[in-house]
Amino acid sequence: MCRWLAYRGRPLLMEALVTEPDHSLIAQSLRADECKAVTNGDGFGVGWYGERDEPGLFRDVRPAWSDENLKSICAHVRSRLFFAHVRATTGSAVSRVNCHPFVHGRHMFMHNGQIGGFDRIKRRVEMLIPDEFYGARLGSTDSEAIFLIAMANGLAVEPIPALAKTLGQIETIMREAGVTEALRLTAAVTDGETLTAFRWASDQKAPSLYYQEANGDLLVVSEPLDSDREGWKEIAQGCAMEARPGRKVERRCLAEAMRAAA
Amino acid sequence: MCRWLAYRGRPLLMEALVTEPDHSLIAQSLRADECKAVTNGDGFGVGWYGERDEPGLFRDVRPAWSDENLKSICAHVRSRLFFAHVRATTGSAVSRVNCHPFVHGRHMFMHNGQIGGFDRIKRRVEMLIPDEFYGARLGSTDSEAIFLIAMANGLAVEPIPALAKTLGQIETIMREAGVTEALRLTAAVTDGETLTAFRWASDQKAPSLYYQEANGDLLVVSEPLDSDREGWKEIAQGCAMEARPGRKVERRCLAEAMRAAA
Amino acid sequence: MCRWLAYRGRPLLMEALVTEPDHSLIAQSLRADECKAVTNGDGFGVGWYGERDEPGLFRDVRPAWSDENLKSICAHVRSRLFFAHVRATTGSAVSRVNCHPFVHGRHMFMHNGQIGGFDRIKRRVEMLIPDEFYGARLGSTDSEAIFLIAMANGLAVEPIPALAKTLGQIETIMREAGVTEALRLTAAVTDGETLTAFRWASDQKAPSLYYQEANGDLLVVSEPLDSDREGWKEIAQGCAMEARPGRKVERRCLAEAMRAAA
Amino acid sequence: MCRWLAYRGRPLLMEALVTEPDHSLIAQSLRADECKAVTNGDGFGVGWYGERDEPGLFRDVRPAWSDENLKSICAHVRSRLFFAHVRATTGSAVSRVNCHPFVHGRHMFMHNGQIGGFDRIKRRVEMLIPDEFYGARLGSTDSEAIFLIAMANGLAVEPIPALAKTLGQIETIMREAGVTEALRLTAAVTDGETLTAFRWASDQKAPSLYYQEANGDLLVVSEPLDSDREGWKEIAQGCAMEARPGRKVERRCLAEAMRAAA
Repeated sequence: MCRWLAYRGRPLLMEALVTEPDHSLIAQSLRADECKAVTNGDGFGVGWYGERDEPGLFRDVRPAWSDENLKSICAHVRSRLFFAHVRATTGSAVSRVNCHPFVHGRHMFMHNGQIGGFDRIKRRVEMLIPDEFYGARLGSTDSEAIFLIAMANGLAVEPIPALAKTLGQIETIMREAGVTEALRLTAAVTDGETLTAFRWASDQKAPSLYYQEANGDLLVVSEPLDSDREGWKEIAQGCAMEARPGRKVERRCLAEAMRAAA
Repeated sequence: MCRWLAYRGRPLLMEALVTEPDHSLIAQSLRADECKAVTNGDGFGVGWYGERDEPGLFRDVRPAWSDENLKSICAHVRSRLFFAHVRATTGSAVSRVNCHPFVHGRHMFMHNGQIGGFDRIKRRVEMLIPDEFYGARLGSTDSEAIFLIAMANGLAVEPIPALAKTLGQIETIMREAGVTEALRLTAAVTDGETLTAFRWASDQKAPSLYYQEANGDLLVVSEPLDSDREGWKEIAQGCAMEARPGRKVERRCLAEAMRAAA
Repeated sequence: MCRWLAYRGRPLLMEALVTEPDHSLIAQSLRADECKAVTNGDGFGVGWYGERDEPGLFRDVRPAWSDENLKSICAHVRSRLFFAHVRATTGSAVSRVNCHPFVHGRHMFMHNGQIGGFDRIKRRVEMLIPDEFYGARLGSTDSEAIFLIAMANGLAVEPIPALAKTLGQIETIMREAGVTEALRLTAAVTDGETLTAFRWASDQKAPSLYYQEANGDLLVVSEPLDSDREGWKEIAQGCAMEARPGRKVERRCLAEAMRAAA
Repeated sequence: MCRWLAYRGRPLLMEALVTEPDHSLIAQSLRADECKAVTNGDGFGVGWYGERDEPGLFRDVRPAWSDENLKSICAHVRSRLFFAHVRATTGSAVSRVNCHPFVHGRHMFMHNGQIGGFDRIKRRVEMLIPDEFYGARLGSTDSEAIFLIAMANGLAVEPIPALAKTLGQIETIMREAGVTEALRLTAAVTDGETLTAFRWASDQKAPSLYYQEANGDLLVVSEPLDSDREGWKEIAQGCAMEARPGRKVERRCLAEAMRAAA
């Protein structure tokens, strides 16, 4: 289990969300509230969009709370769209390539959760990644596999159907392999313009996910960054939320999208 | 604040104490019980005596709980005398040279606690280290400074008077500088034969320290490694404990030694 | 391209081969002589057999030449059979799980060289790893893939036919994919008793490989550890060398073994 | 010995100088031309000015040539004034706090060279740092000590006299201690506006230093970034060069400044 945040809106210094709030992501790396893994100290990452199509990316294996590089980069990089993530590994190695976010061209993805029984079905899940995206697999996490399978399923064009199809494919493999543990996830993806967030679990026990919207600025988080619970809305289990530029935020039911994709 | 253990006795694989017990040092790195800093994830170290006079040393900056190297080394190195330490920094950088234990020739030292107001008096404390030992200062912690000052004060010959004198010198500097925070410490030192452990605080709030003795095997720990509280004895505040080869463990009052050293 | 050494014989402190010789493996990490990659600074590893069936393993991503942990471990660990490796990446990430040696149960493997066009055929090569060994794939190197495929092909029972079969399978994939770059390798494998070394290239340009044998002690190296060229014998291209306990070292032609395996 | 570059001018993506040129600083980390230490793989750093008074800072201990974070940050950060540095340690530990540049408030400093016999006179050199700057000493290099002594000597106000005085003080300590090795340095300092570069050696064997000036853009480097030797001018031994905003670049003789400071 991990903690993450995704922001799209007026350009902000990343520190405004990553390090400064009372219950900032860095504070959550040491002490999370709504998470089985209280400590998220197995690496971190930030990815941000600036003047290029592709995002900048800074990931490292040390705990976020003591990383002076992270602090300095967040204090000096201003961005209109960025992701930040602190990791608690569910088994795969603590290495930079296993830290979130993951980048493919101008697309960026991050994830919290777990494919139940992944160790036993890893090979079959990875086989869903076609050659075109296979070379982009640098690490060994289920998270990166989900991202690349979804890319093959059209994440760049229609994020919600693409992830829905991916979840369906993985649940089929799990079922066929007799896996009884659940598939649970929250995730975010962007192409540098549209921001889409997902919350799903095969057993209705999805990790927590909240958002805040004000004056066109959107912030999606694993846990609220402050104690003002009023200001935060929960994203319902089984839902996706899509924020396209110049459009109102839209909500969609993932189960429906999965049925349509099946 | 940090957590540590020191062992002297029949040669053991280090894993027997460092990774295997329920509340092993690695478990304490993620979740300590008797410590202000619940998470001790700012680096770790093990030092052990084998066939050489000087101890082997392995220190790294990542959290102990996810370090596969630490696990493997503890599973394969058997030693009659070893120290292990997990760190929660009180300010100085997370770097290998700031991780415990510290080694000087055949002497090894580790520490938990803090010199109150160290930032303000660092220069004056470091000035207590004579040229002979100054080149051995590789990092920037108060811990390493205490070790090298104590070495200059005769730690190699008479550990208890040497550390007592050192604590007295530092408390004098603190008093002169008007520092109101306390000096608190537990520490262990060895020359590869004698093991000495210390518990001290200028305000009677020393960090916890326990030991177990059985059949001539001595284990000193910041916190018990299991829930059997019966098996562990507390080392009283202001006390030192010295285990010389072939001699009964001796206890001495540090305040007395400080008066004698003054 | 990388540099490595494998030793089997009287128990030695690893430093005797890894850090002390004039042209030790650590010296080669900074300045190799017979290698396209002069600098082998992308991580290192040592693996050694002691009192357990499984080897101890210490791998890290920093250059070997400046790693104080490596120096200390080599100075304090004595072993009758150990591998050491310094890495120059040919593309995959610098991470611990991509450092050699690789361990599976009591088997240990390391490698120098490259599967030509690996990026394009990675998926097909990885598909040769059956489920039984797929969970053991922690990194993303061609080296680890070769090891796990060979394990599936019987490396634990008959190392030479198993690796020959593996090379044949990979060359088939390369041919089918129209890869024109060569497959070149030197490698070593052991189960803690038998030590087997390999030198192969599809284009007769295999990396260098030498050995020394004296009083039953066997040392195999990418490059001689000293300038005494007399003391070293080259292992011929296309050859494998097998040292079983209590038996004379045997040489076998890999091409023959490949034909037999086909 | 290390390699560095300093740029002041039109805002540039840092990659234009750090990673893209044929003989970029990253290329020099693997293979420097005019340097005793061919490989500069003991860590690196970049520091840049953006919208804050204080510079951003990113330093790490891995070799620059394989660091994906460095590449991404240089590709995404645009700055009007930045420093970049690759390190070859002359003895002190490979740790982030020992990597250049060093920052104090809005001032940034980096260095190449060595105080001869530093190990023997370290304590006396550090004593030149007054309490006011002593708390800012995070590492153990002679470089950081030179910076903090120079800060105490007025580096923030008049860089050239301040560094000249510092060099004089250190040479006095060396002389008194009977050190026969030389003091050699190139260095750069800035407050975010003025850029000053120095080249000095007590034995006339200062490390190389070059610059290029065009349309008000100034670039100072340890070695030219390309093979066009015409485009580069050498900074003479014993000289300093000061580029104040809106003023012509001025050259000054350091020996003179040292006499004035004495």
